[in-house]
Amino acid sequence: MIPFPAPDKDILARRAEIVAGLSRLVPPAALITSENERRAYDTDALTAYRRLPLAVVLPRTTEEVAAVLSFLHQEKVPVVARGSGTSLAGGAIPQEDAVVVGIGKMTKILEVDFANRFARVQAGVTNLAITDAVRHEDFFYAPDPSSQLACTIGGNVAMNSGGAHCLKHGVTTNNLLGVRMVLIDGSIVDIGGPHLDAPGYDLLGLVCGSEGQLGIVTEATVRILRHAEGARPVLLAFPDSVKAGAAVAGIIAAGMVPVALEFMDQEAVAICEAFSHAGYPLGAGAMLIVEVEGSESEMEAQLARIVAIAGEHGVETVRESKSALETALIWKGRKSAFGATGRVADYICMDGTIPTGQLPLVLRRIGEIVASYGLRVANVFHAGDGNLHPLVLYNANDAQQSHDAEEAGNDILRLCVEVGGCLTGEHGVGIEKRDLMGVQFSRVDLDQQMRVRAVFDPAWLLNPAKVFPLEGRTPPFPVAA
Amino acid sequence: MIPFPAPDKDILARRAEIVAGLSRLVPPAALITSENERRAYDTDALTAYRRLPLAVVLPRTTEEVAAVLSFLHQEKVPVVARGSGTSLAGGAIPQEDAVVVGIGKMTKILEVDFANRFARVQAGVTNLAITDAVRHEDFFYAPDPSSQLACTIGGNVAMNSGGAHCLKHGVTTNNLLGVRMVLIDGSIVDIGGPHLDAPGYDLLGLVCGSEGQLGIVTEATVRILRHAEGARPVLLAFPDSVKAGAAVAGIIAAGMVPVALEFMDQEAVAICEAFSHAGYPLGAGAMLIVEVEGSESEMEAQLARIVAIAGEHGVETVRESKSALETALIWKGRKSAFGATGRVADYICMDGTIPTGQLPLVLRRIGEIVASYGLRVANVFHAGDGNLHPLVLYNANDAQQSHDAEEAGNDILRLCVEVGGCLTGEHGVGIEKRDLMGVQFSRVDLDQQMRVRAVFDPAWLLNPAKVFPLEGRTPPFPVAA
Repeated sequence: MIPFPAPDKDILARRAEIVAGLSRLVPPAALITSENERRAYDTDALTAYRRLPLAVVLPRTTEEVAAVLSFLHQEKVPVVARGSGTSLAGGAIPQEDAVVVGIGKMTKILEVDFANRFARVQAGVTNLAITDAVRHEDFFYAPDPSSQLACTIGGNVAMNSGGAHCLKHGVTTNNLLGVRMVLIDGSIVDIGGPHLDAPGYDLLGLVCGSEGQLGIVTEATVRILRHAEGARPVLLAFPDSVKAGAAVAGIIAAGMVPVALEFMDQEAVAICEAFSHAGYPLGAGAMLIVEVEGSESEMEAQLARIVAIAGEHGVETVRESKSALETALIWKGRKSAFGATGRVADYICMDGTIPTGQLPLVLRRIGEIVASYGLRVANVFHAGDGNLHPLVLYNANDAQQSHDAEEAGNDILRLCVEVGGCLTGEHGVGIEKRDLMGVQFSRVDLDQQMRVRAVFDPAWLLNPAKVFPLEGRTPPFPVAA
Repeated sequence: MIPFPAPDKDILARRAEIVAGLSRLVPPAALITSENERRAYDTDALTAYRRLPLAVVLPRTTEEVAAVLSFLHQEKVPVVARGSGTSLAGGAIPQEDAVVVGIGKMTKILEVDFANRFARVQAGVTNLAITDAVRHEDFFYAPDPSSQLACTIGGNVAMNSGGAHCLKHGVTTNNLLGVRMVLIDGSIVDIGGPHLDAPGYDLLGLVCGSEGQLGIVTEATVRILRHAEGARPVLLAFPDSVKAGAAVAGIIAAGMVPVALEFMDQEAVAICEAFSHAGYPLGAGAMLIVEVEGSESEMEAQLARIVAIAGEHGVETVRESKSALETALIWKGRKSAFGATGRVADYICMDGTIPTGQLPLVLRRIGEIVASYGLRVANVFHAGDGNLHPLVLYNANDAQQSHDAEEAGNDILRLCVEVGGCLTGEHGVGIEKRDLMGVQFSRVDLDQQMRVRAVFDPAWLLNPAKVFPLEGRTPPFPVAA
């Protein structure tokens, strides 16, 4: 079990007063105080932990966010920012002495500029809504987390989210041009913008992935891209995971950059096929989805090379998509992986990265680790950029299994670091991987990151229980009980 | 004239003692103390300003850099890091009370991994040497500053350098995976690595572009890319700059991403053609070089679309490269622009960015600004990503013209900010644009950046006269005389 800090009793005692103060800053509909309604905000997609927040505020403007933060800063009350609560790492799980500031009502598309290829939106706009707003001109926003129908761009910025199609177009930080952000004292800053680069330090990169600890992003300016002429996935089935992993390494080593290169092992194929009827090859030991894009002749040339490389690694079935409908179905199967898995078992979704050359070794070791705890694993992940998502399956009603699943997950992440990878690819650290940060970073590294953090939030009020291990936090950074 | 801080007299008085201390840390050949030899380090490619440094150290290892910084930190002596001294913004111009730490002898290629598409090199390896080390497998390192034969990857990281081919593959920050960096107190940190993303804050993005103020980078791990099947530039000549600018905006607005999209006006075409005999169309009002890549059929399809868009904007000449030799010559002409211009006049090379949709307006305004000072301008720049390089021509022996050229350059940068762009695209702030930072940033913005800086260098010893205006530096940040 991951420790949460004990709530500050003084803040709990001042709850009525704090709520009264907030009620003077936002309209009644934007303030949630009843226990029943606060329940909806007590966890996120990690779900293993629940904490009832002090109150929830749902502002509609940057100015409201500024007024709320200024007040909470003055009252020394912790703040947990929240998008749609789809964090898989517990990044949005509140603490009992904190006010949740939800950006879910900030859903305005502020500006779309096709000539300069950017869109400026409020932070609560969902990932898919950005693409919906530019689709009529054949443009799209590239990063596509599985939760893209629900997750907000503000949450994407906080966690530097990725997705299946990020191999070619990059993750959030590669597609983010600027943000408007409210600092903890209520001041409003603009960082970056729709132009190339910016003078001075790259604070935009720093903000992207900072998990709501440097400020609350209220607007984002993102790059929009034109769709390629065509895009086509091919399914490649292999007798086992090691051969499929070797094919992935072969494709990447050949210098090819498909739009997407997804891996699913036998267990994952079976689970997703049962849910989505995408026509996945059920008997296969492992399956790849490789998507290429471009003109017809270019797609054919790329697919021919990919199939040849797969052939060198014992591919058994090759199935190109024949229609837009089939393409949509193939992706629906992959993107429903987490939901589909949730129907058959409880699971912990790990998120680590490794050098792609290490895939065959790591897949074998993951199998051994999970088996040593007597558990099962389904592997479904972004293989092209070495971003693993092993789903460790267990029964949440069995305390021993729950404990073992957490341990197996931690072992897998340690393995990622050991082979030259890292603890998280696109889900962030949150609370889930907080206490593993010492596996990746030295004390000096963590202290330096905390000092940078303190520049933005000296009183350590923003999402304070996350990212950095509670133990060993250098004073003056709060060491929770 | 840009003010330099007055040198610290106490440090000047302690020079012999400081040199003696350094001589105990590095071999004799790595320490430069004679006035004659120090002269070679008194400026960089900005050349308008010269300051003789206290001493120059040329370490060969990270450990030597660490020993030198630890000593200088203890002695409270400023440090200016230097690659090959090709900075166009004066980023490497020393100050008289500073020791220059040059990384030019750190030229080892440490690791090349084709399977995982990265190279790890010492910071003094030149940009082109990285490509040379991977060329045999048909790989390359993407960012390509005009100075790529001379400039170091360490300097590229410091300034977040770009180049003509960055439209598609991005600038340094988009191709940098990790660094080893020595902090001012001599401690050594590793940031990032050859895996996707990293947990915690994105300090790598912060380091890239920080102009030697956060530490000295001694190793860099960079992404290497596989060459496309083919690449082909086309020259497009237009009757005037405004039409050529409109064609650029049209190509970008169509959602196309050529590998390069370069602009040269009549003056620049004449200067470069005289130097390189690349076959540029001398009569044209403006010329574009657009390079596409891919398979033969894909290149043909892209070029057809580009030529069609150019046709809508009055293109007069279309000339596709017919051979590898012709392609090399076309690029030689473009990349020699700065050298070629230096043969016909003194010039200031400005570096600002604008939204590409504003190109026609901005080109007209630049002409008006420069004419109002009675000067001439040659425009040669990366048009595809809106990164302008107007070369303001003047006579450096004429004090009035020198002053006017600097003023005209500043007016152009203010114009960039005014239309929604920014002060620098790829050359950095250095000393040249230091006092214009207030045009782009508010006091709050600059203070926040300085506070982040102070986390890494609390005593403000690293390249202290650069990036932030001397006036208005918030205590405890040194306010120079």
